[in-house]
Amino acid sequence: MAVILHHLNNSRSVRILWLLEEAGITYDLVRYQRDAKTHLAPDSLKKIHPLGKSPVIEIDGQVITESGAIVEFLIARFAPQLAPAADTPQYTEYLQWIHFAESSAMLPVLLKVFGAFEKNTGTQLNFLEDYAETEFNKVFTFLNDTLAEREFITGDALNGADIMLGFVVSTALDQLNAGDRFPHISRYAQRLRNTQSWQKVLAVESAGNR
Amino acid sequence: MAVILHHLNNSRSVRILWLLEEAGITYDLVRYQRDAKTHLAPDSLKKIHPLGKSPVIEIDGQVITESGAIVEFLIARFAPQLAPAADTPQYTEYLQWIHFAESSAMLPVLLKVFGAFEKNTGTQLNFLEDYAETEFNKVFTFLNDTLAEREFITGDALNGADIMLGFVVSTALDQLNAGDRFPHISRYAQRLRNTQSWQKVLAVESAGNR
Repeated sequence: MAVILHHLNNSRSVRILWLLEEAGITYDLVRYQRDAKTHLAPDSLKKIHPLGKSPVIEIDGQVITESGAIVEFLIARFAPQLAPAADTPQYTEYLQWIHFAESSAMLPVLLKVFGAFEKNTGTQLNFLEDYAETEFNKVFTFLNDTLAEREFITGDALNGADIMLGFVVSTALDQLNAGDRFPHISRYAQRLRNTQSWQKVLAVESAGNR
Repeated sequence: MAVILHHLNNSRSVRILWLLEEAGITYDLVRYQRDAKTHLAPDSLKKIHPLGKSPVIEIDGQVITESGAIVEFLIARFAPQLAPAADTPQYTEYLQWIHFAESSAMLPVLLKVFGAFEKNTGTQLNFLEDYAETEFNKVFTFLNDTLAEREFITGDALNGADIMLGFVVSTALDQLNAGDRFPHISRYAQRLRNTQSWQKVLAVESAGNR
């Protein structure tokens, strides 16, 4: 029943370590060290989850990634005192900050950190471009593999996660022409576009452009 | 009681429009159009929320931002059929995809889209650098202002949202030397570092580096 935390030094995984300590949750720690030169995570993390990232936790045989999801999961399960009560305006405010941290806030911080790194090391453009391509390929391969045997992202029916993913997927397909490289994602995007509700969205959007 | 959606064309706001249509939730639409040349959102969105972004919804007098938070909120309140049942492994998987969409997946897609934009328009380095600085300044000013009158991000006690934010804030302060520009964030970071649980994290981290 104990939580296993696969912990990479100097990573978002400190969040989970902190949460476990703050809530007094029992855990086993498995340590991973970044390469001293490249700062990359070791390949051994890919044995835990295809994305090869940290934090990752294991509990009851389930592997859980994404720090926001792990935080929401652990608090719901073990530490309700670390969130406002559900169905209150305070809980909604809390949810916004949870998402703000990785969405609105993290992107510009990472861009600036990478930009400073490029300037300091004189690597110029290529570092960011290579990083983007490597990450893109890894993430979309994982998504493509997942969609090989599913109609929608968690099974055979559309839900909120598909609605979140749809925007990312259509941006990648429309603006990066990535459809040929990721055929299962391409078919998934078509299934999303075929829903009646998406057809209504198109009608609303095009009415605004008139 | 109706949901008001402040909707910017060609933005993450299509997610919320789609969810409202899919769930059959009654809503009022307020439209905003990107500038045809700069592709930027109009300033009028800043009257709704300081970040000036879309999607933003209003309901019961509360303004809600961040597409992940809005999706979680609307589904919990109006459309439980669009998520697996709580406390199941399926729900945890769903949560991961919700966060994956904006965290792991969105960053490399945006980097590649921006990179292609720079190449196509010949604007080179400066576009990404300017974008990063503008976004960083806007987001951290909003965070700084919020923290002017609060000890922690949703009030007077630490919760999961602080744990999510702590990593972003400490990255910005340590690697971008942003402390002087954002004094309330700087003091907030110190409060986070002073918690007993954070001291334990430091001990665990330093034990791993021996």
